[in-house]
Amino acid sequence: MIAQVRGSRPVTDVCSRLYLKHVATMEKYISVKDLENVALSMLSKSTGDYYKSGATDEQSLAENRDAFKRLRIRPKCLVGVGNSCLNTTVLGQKVSMPIGIAPSAMQRMAHPDGELANVRAAQAEGTIYTLSTIATSSIEEVSEAAPNAIKWFQLYIYNDREVTKNLVLRAEKAGFKAIALTVDTPLFGIRRADIRNNFTLPSHLRITNLPIVAKGIMRADDAIEAVQAGCSGILVSNHGARQLDGTPATIEVLPEIVEAVKSYNVEVYLDGGVTTGTDVYKALALGARMVFVGRPALWGLTVGGQAGVQKMLQILRTELQFTVQIAGTPTISDIKRDMVCHESVYSKL
Amino acid sequence: MIAQVRGSRPVTDVCSRLYLKHVATMEKYISVKDLENVALSMLSKSTGDYYKSGATDEQSLAENRDAFKRLRIRPKCLVGVGNSCLNTTVLGQKVSMPIGIAPSAMQRMAHPDGELANVRAAQAEGTIYTLSTIATSSIEEVSEAAPNAIKWFQLYIYNDREVTKNLVLRAEKAGFKAIALTVDTPLFGIRRADIRNNFTLPSHLRITNLPIVAKGIMRADDAIEAVQAGCSGILVSNHGARQLDGTPATIEVLPEIVEAVKSYNVEVYLDGGVTTGTDVYKALALGARMVFVGRPALWGLTVGGQAGVQKMLQILRTELQFTVQIAGTPTISDIKRDMVCHESVYSKL
Amino acid sequence: MIAQVRGSRPVTDVCSRLYLKHVATMEKYISVKDLENVALSMLSKSTGDYYKSGATDEQSLAENRDAFKRLRIRPKCLVGVGNSCLNTTVLGQKVSMPIGIAPSAMQRMAHPDGELANVRAAQAEGTIYTLSTIATSSIEEVSEAAPNAIKWFQLYIYNDREVTKNLVLRAEKAGFKAIALTVDTPLFGIRRADIRNNFTLPSHLRITNLPIVAKGIMRADDAIEAVQAGCSGILVSNHGARQLDGTPATIEVLPEIVEAVKSYNVEVYLDGGVTTGTDVYKALALGARMVFVGRPALWGLTVGGQAGVQKMLQILRTELQFTVQIAGTPTISDIKRDMVCHESVYSKL
Amino acid sequence: MIAQVRGSRPVTDVCSRLYLKHVATMEKYISVKDLENVALSMLSKSTGDYYKSGATDEQSLAENRDAFKRLRIRPKCLVGVGNSCLNTTVLGQKVSMPIGIAPSAMQRMAHPDGELANVRAAQAEGTIYTLSTIATSSIEEVSEAAPNAIKWFQLYIYNDREVTKNLVLRAEKAGFKAIALTVDTPLFGIRRADIRNNFTLPSHLRITNLPIVAKGIMRADDAIEAVQAGCSGILVSNHGARQLDGTPATIEVLPEIVEAVKSYNVEVYLDGGVTTGTDVYKALALGARMVFVGRPALWGLTVGGQAGVQKMLQILRTELQFTVQIAGTPTISDIKRDMVCHESVYSKL
Repeated sequence: MIAQVRGSRPVTDVCSRLYLKHVATMEKYISVKDLENVALSMLSKSTGDYYKSGATDEQSLAENRDAFKRLRIRPKCLVGVGNSCLNTTVLGQKVSMPIGIAPSAMQRMAHPDGELANVRAAQAEGTIYTLSTIATSSIEEVSEAAPNAIKWFQLYIYNDREVTKNLVLRAEKAGFKAIALTVDTPLFGIRRADIRNNFTLPSHLRITNLPIVAKGIMRADDAIEAVQAGCSGILVSNHGARQLDGTPATIEVLPEIVEAVKSYNVEVYLDGGVTTGTDVYKALALGARMVFVGRPALWGLTVGGQAGVQKMLQILRTELQFTVQIAGTPTISDIKRDMVCHESVYSKL
Repeated sequence: MIAQVRGSRPVTDVCSRLYLKHVATMEKYISVKDLENVALSMLSKSTGDYYKSGATDEQSLAENRDAFKRLRIRPKCLVGVGNSCLNTTVLGQKVSMPIGIAPSAMQRMAHPDGELANVRAAQAEGTIYTLSTIATSSIEEVSEAAPNAIKWFQLYIYNDREVTKNLVLRAEKAGFKAIALTVDTPLFGIRRADIRNNFTLPSHLRITNLPIVAKGIMRADDAIEAVQAGCSGILVSNHGARQLDGTPATIEVLPEIVEAVKSYNVEVYLDGGVTTGTDVYKALALGARMVFVGRPALWGLTVGGQAGVQKMLQILRTELQFTVQIAGTPTISDIKRDMVCHESVYSKL
Repeated sequence: MIAQVRGSRPVTDVCSRLYLKHVATMEKYISVKDLENVALSMLSKSTGDYYKSGATDEQSLAENRDAFKRLRIRPKCLVGVGNSCLNTTVLGQKVSMPIGIAPSAMQRMAHPDGELANVRAAQAEGTIYTLSTIATSSIEEVSEAAPNAIKWFQLYIYNDREVTKNLVLRAEKAGFKAIALTVDTPLFGIRRADIRNNFTLPSHLRITNLPIVAKGIMRADDAIEAVQAGCSGILVSNHGARQLDGTPATIEVLPEIVEAVKSYNVEVYLDGGVTTGTDVYKALALGARMVFVGRPALWGLTVGGQAGVQKMLQILRTELQFTVQIAGTPTISDIKRDMVCHESVYSKL
Repeated sequence: MIAQVRGSRPVTDVCSRLYLKHVATMEKYISVKDLENVALSMLSKSTGDYYKSGATDEQSLAENRDAFKRLRIRPKCLVGVGNSCLNTTVLGQKVSMPIGIAPSAMQRMAHPDGELANVRAAQAEGTIYTLSTIATSSIEEVSEAAPNAIKWFQLYIYNDREVTKNLVLRAEKAGFKAIALTVDTPLFGIRRADIRNNFTLPSHLRITNLPIVAKGIMRADDAIEAVQAGCSGILVSNHGARQLDGTPATIEVLPEIVEAVKSYNVEVYLDGGVTTGTDVYKALALGARMVFVGRPALWGLTVGGQAGVQKMLQILRTELQFTVQIAGTPTISDIKRDMVCHESVYSKL
């Protein structure tokens, strides 16, 4: 069930040459949508469908995107923006921008370099890479490929506690900085009756000093419960709208979760539907400390390996940089709640 | 006017062989929509149109479906879901899931086995079959075909009280468990001036010990009146949106009706527009004890007789099972009101 | 400017034969939309466009229709409907149903019989015909063609008071029952500075004992002013959405106007966008005593002269009859305000 | 960076002949949309795209238009409208109507006469022309071309204060009446850290006695700050939706800004999405003293030089004239706030 597959050795020399070539050819892409379109033309239909699809009727998949469009940015004009800066910190680690890479399974399906290209891109761009449990590169390979990247390890709750324990120990030893514990996926034959109604972190996770991020929270009460159980971060996520159709968009539930945990010393993050710099900006204004992108990283990886992922991150960085400047909030801490409102505000004339 | 037609003898042997074959070929269908598409390609245009159509401009027909899409499921993550179970009871009878079969007229138009295939499917899947008064199999034939099914009998209010009385007696004798009294159809030459403004159950229905379910209620005041007149259940229904165009969707009026009768010892059910497991889930969260499906049973019946109806029920069961697990409400009684909200909640940022 | 043109003599014998033939061929039309489609195929493009078009971008034209679709009928089931009846009175006159014919200009453009066919249809169906000032038949011809019809005369406010006075006297003498005074059309070279800010009925209208209906009211304050100036009826109208694009739909402003004048002894009517029996029902529930249809009469007139207009009225009558029965409000006075609500009510879960 | 390019000498004789010809051929255009369609067919694709496009996904570009359609005009009928008049004043200057020309860059891209044709059209129609800093005609040429036009000068805030100072002095000397200071464009390499958080007018703008209009305000707090810093007017603008996608429509934020500055002696204007007379009317009702049109002037300029711009202004004038009459508010000062409401008012039945 656990696919920490040791992939074929990454052909690093070829990759380096390819990387330089790719950096040059990446110039023509000016939006994440561009990368998506090209990636889908390169992937087999089955892989492309697997990456892009959502649950059932894909209503929540569309909502994750559309809900961003229902939010408005209210720019401030009378502000100097000379010293704009996207730096922030996440769980105490400095990142160059509040945009990181979400976990996704078996990334060598997208590109021969798979996880290694992805983590190198995160390292080069100064942000977080989250390794999926279901990966085509080992924890150690990922660590070695990008020793200076900020790496998180995504973990399911398995029945076999020794397996989990072993994975966490390896991640900790390999220099990973946090565990992103997926809490929205009870369907892999897992039995968790023991934690019912009194959520506590599984005992085999108390072996570790790494901070735990609860990934998949969509309700205020769950957020509070996770924090009280010891989690340091809440990742608002509906699993890329791949699990249950009919959930709200993640950006829609973000405010209630931020409000719920504001008296705790905890960070809130978001993934789901982020494809532009203004999406990131809206999430930050509503209280997210960081957003994560999953599919965009796969599109970049498919199109250009490490260079493609970097291009994707650069596009979002440029768009976010422009947005903070034009909105009159030159640094991340300037982005207050009142910079964004729901479109419905304007029907209350 | 009453069409308790004794159909041609069901060719049972052929049916059995067909049934086994059908079970095998049913595998390819993975949604109710699949069955609908195939059924409509098999039926004559006039029969297909008759089954699928709604009143006038079909606005309410579309609303019955669309209103479900405007509801959001708010999944709970921090819950063990090992012992999920769909069992529930309806009017004291155990059913394997809260999804039953609504009445529809003359089912041999869809398949030679008609009502008999349908009731056998209900028996095999452990749920309720509602026989229409306007049927192509007799009460007794239906009872004989599936002695262990939970059978309800749908009844119009006829002027000829002897006819009604006779039907009810036959149904009671044949082991039916409830009368679903259609109250939204005053247009078959019926004169009911005698019950105006002071609704009481027709006297010829007080012969019977069977519980009465008022089918077709769309308002809180009507629900209260029906309960006070002695009904044991309220079936929220707009007659499959076939009567009056411009009514609300049934799922929209469900909450006001549940609220209205909550202090009474009465159950509330719903039909109209249910085609997925998440639709069922939303109705349960808003207070329905059971939902009924009409057209989906006709699609299944058309495509594969008993096997087709069972396939339809199995699809809904699987979808509902998945939904209760992923939503963190593993049993029916876990599905509280706050698991679902209207999309407009998220425009109040 | 005034087009009380004496048309060519109506060829009555031919008409009678045509009428019988038309009655037979009308059977195939089952909705107002059917008549519209056929009429538009019969008319020259310029006449068809003239009839069907609205102002500028036709936003209000669409809204007049769409606003009806945003209203929901909440049927009552537990009511006997044996004695349903559509009779009502308007300004003291008995009509067979609350659906009358609105004024429209020069009806011989649609059919050789023009206004005469139209008024005969109204007489045959027992309802009101409103004659436009800009007509292709004279007041006297219309009166003679249908002596028993309830006839209203539509009047603009002209600068030339003698002209107006003469028209009113002729209408009164010819047995017309009310003056529908168009108040929303100040653009025919009219100077009304004399009535500015203190609206009073023009002195030349106080010659007459006929009740005055103010046609074109879209605001509560205007309604009150009209009533205080002596009007007996308020006809909520945006001139068929032909004047100013961007106005609300008439059905949208109806409730505020009904509310505003409820303490006065005055009737409120509506035109604009009515094409089905449920539209009529919704207007009645929101407080209209009568609705008027303009374009539908032109479609009927075009398709079949008198028989066509009667067919149109019969379609609406049948649809309204069905609606009052199925909604559980068998007579007009049963249709209370709570039978209809706005769709937005159901987003307040 | 500053493009006060002295263009090739305008070929005035040819222009005069062209002008007369154009006046004749302009008759066929009856809406701004007509002019847009023809202009786009005449321009190169790149220029046409440059003019018509908005930022990123063009969501705000569409919203600027669509938000007008969500507003309703509530016409008053019982008002004499004989003396309708569109005259008003802006910063003490008389204009023949509340519709002026917004700045746009390098207008000789649209037509050889560029800014000169545009300003002559404004002069002929008795309204305001705003000259862009980035122009293809000099301040002096524009002044000489239309000495009697009311001319404003649009200014960016440059780092090089001498350049700015020189431009303002030239504009003042050339008879310009106001400076429209663009405050929403911090991205031309500008460093304004000096004004951060304490907005004051740049010292080099205090040389001038011309009133300053802050162009690009989208928030109430910014409006107040601009007024307190000495601005005489607030031009609500999102830069034609060309800067930041995801902002509200300008007509949506207008009310909050009007409300915010109502206790100050200051005027509020609007640009963005205005293409019809009813758009203008809605902006006036919500508190704008004047609206400005940018793209419509470019369409007119492209199609017919001065005659084309005049035609555009005449279309809007005619439409606005009609609207004030039919709405029962014959002069600009009659247009009170309650003449317009949001469509959502009508979902509160």
